[in-house]
Amino acid sequence: MGEKVKICEVGPRDGLQMAASIMPTAVKIEWIASLVEAGIHEIEVGSFVPPKLIPQMADTAEVVRASRAMHGLTVAALVPNLKGAQRAHESGADVIIVPVSVSEGHSRANTNKGSLDQVAELRGIVDWVRAQERPMKVDAGCATAFGCSIEGHVPQERVVMVAAALAEAGVDNVVLADTVGYGNPMQVRATVRAVRQEIGPVLDRLHLHDTMGLGLANALAGLEEGIRCFDSALAGLGGCPFAPGASGNIVTEDLVFMLESMGFATGVDLDGLIRAREVLQRGLPGAALLGNVTKAGIPRTYRRAA
Amino acid sequence: MGEKVKICEVGPRDGLQMAASIMPTAVKIEWIASLVEAGIHEIEVGSFVPPKLIPQMADTAEVVRASRAMHGLTVAALVPNLKGAQRAHESGADVIIVPVSVSEGHSRANTNKGSLDQVAELRGIVDWVRAQERPMKVDAGCATAFGCSIEGHVPQERVVMVAAALAEAGVDNVVLADTVGYGNPMQVRATVRAVRQEIGPVLDRLHLHDTMGLGLANALAGLEEGIRCFDSALAGLGGCPFAPGASGNIVTEDLVFMLESMGFATGVDLDGLIRAREVLQRGLPGAALLGNVTKAGIPRTYRRAA
Repeated sequence: MGEKVKICEVGPRDGLQMAASIMPTAVKIEWIASLVEAGIHEIEVGSFVPPKLIPQMADTAEVVRASRAMHGLTVAALVPNLKGAQRAHESGADVIIVPVSVSEGHSRANTNKGSLDQVAELRGIVDWVRAQERPMKVDAGCATAFGCSIEGHVPQERVVMVAAALAEAGVDNVVLADTVGYGNPMQVRATVRAVRQEIGPVLDRLHLHDTMGLGLANALAGLEEGIRCFDSALAGLGGCPFAPGASGNIVTEDLVFMLESMGFATGVDLDGLIRAREVLQRGLPGAALLGNVTKAGIPRTYRRAA
Repeated sequence: MGEKVKICEVGPRDGLQMAASIMPTAVKIEWIASLVEAGIHEIEVGSFVPPKLIPQMADTAEVVRASRAMHGLTVAALVPNLKGAQRAHESGADVIIVPVSVSEGHSRANTNKGSLDQVAELRGIVDWVRAQERPMKVDAGCATAFGCSIEGHVPQERVVMVAAALAEAGVDNVVLADTVGYGNPMQVRATVRAVRQEIGPVLDRLHLHDTMGLGLANALAGLEEGIRCFDSALAGLGGCPFAPGASGNIVTEDLVFMLESMGFATGVDLDGLIRAREVLQRGLPGAALLGNVTKAGIPRTYRRAA
């Protein structure tokens, strides 16, 4: 029995929000169910953002409610502010992820606020959530932790500073996100180490993009630094708003293949993921589905770790 | 100034031998020259195999002769047997690479001989080369070192045994090749370590394929074990004969991006590689060129190590 690694599927949120068309709610729910069937136990099913900004996410409350009924699933949703957190709580989400941009330029461009103002807002969210009767986990994402399309290089000390402020604000966990996919394995290793030195295991997850093709190498670097939870998207759905045509999140199928081949137990079944791709393709007929495992086929040497 | 890592471009051999069409000799030479211009200092320019078997390689002698004139280039060619080695020597190659399949089944399927018979043949090649007045380096490739499409799993002890026999036969260097791309980072790490324990720095290079998407993660594992030389192909040219449509060699552009971003000095210029892709595309108009760096564009954070 291999050591466990958790996969958090973010395709229904990070993938669909970039999609050219809108997936019908019924197919979204069927897709999420097929992912659960494949052994995924945490899914970011949508985001509570204004539908005018991201119409692909307008049905998130309905999707959260349907997902709650799925056995063994931790239902996560992204929220940008207190109002989103309240809607997520009302719908019954188990976890909210609140993004805070480490890059000041990215933060101001997206929210009209600086990083530390965002942290202050997050503190309000944490306080509100903790005051509710029904518990809900609050995770914070350090967006642009490995580079920024606006500011370019993001200093590691700044990542540590923002991560420490988030931990201090009382979030349950911190995620380091390579939002634009500029990170490299040495940087991932050094940053994880530096942030863990400051906040310990509160940093428990990496959110990596494959923009430059280094996604799995970056995951390996994180894994070697002790990270045991990764975000990924089925078929690498999504993309990079700053690089049209570029790859999106790391591919769930390929990540599972790598981890299981190395002896880690993800609990995820590759054939199940391939079936989930069929649902995804039906819901987004025009979308390009990425992934080497599907392209090449599962090799005969493949054995699941558990 | 970062630590040096050598890139050996294998596209003109491993890439073109899988191509559906034949690149004209003049364009091959122009392509090789454009790679040298980009800072690549070792190129596997072709293979001395019977033209009836691989017509794409029929002009290898001419390509070797033209490549010799290129300043600062180490001209390598693949040879399957003594006759090929003699032709390579006659054409003026600096290095020959002789593949030996670690998998007995793969060896018999490809050469009608077992692995150790192939090693015996290689010993004859080494003896012949050492008797010539003009020196020529002899490298041996351990093919299917990380898995085999015929035999499946390839035991690590067998890789060590074959590598040791090759070193004992007197080759200059041994390359471990993930011919079908089934390897994973843990396996690469363990195998490099075990082989190095047996033959030390005679093992100096990895030849990795990206079939399952793990190519750069596997390169990272090798790098962390001290390997400082990697084969790769521009635009990931090539493929896997056992998985139609699958990715081929690791992509030179993405590998250079990863290494330089990590602070290693490859001496290779990404813009130069992008220009070399144009020559490649002209010589193989129908071919699908892979590579994330080209798809996404070089990010503003990119700085060459040296």
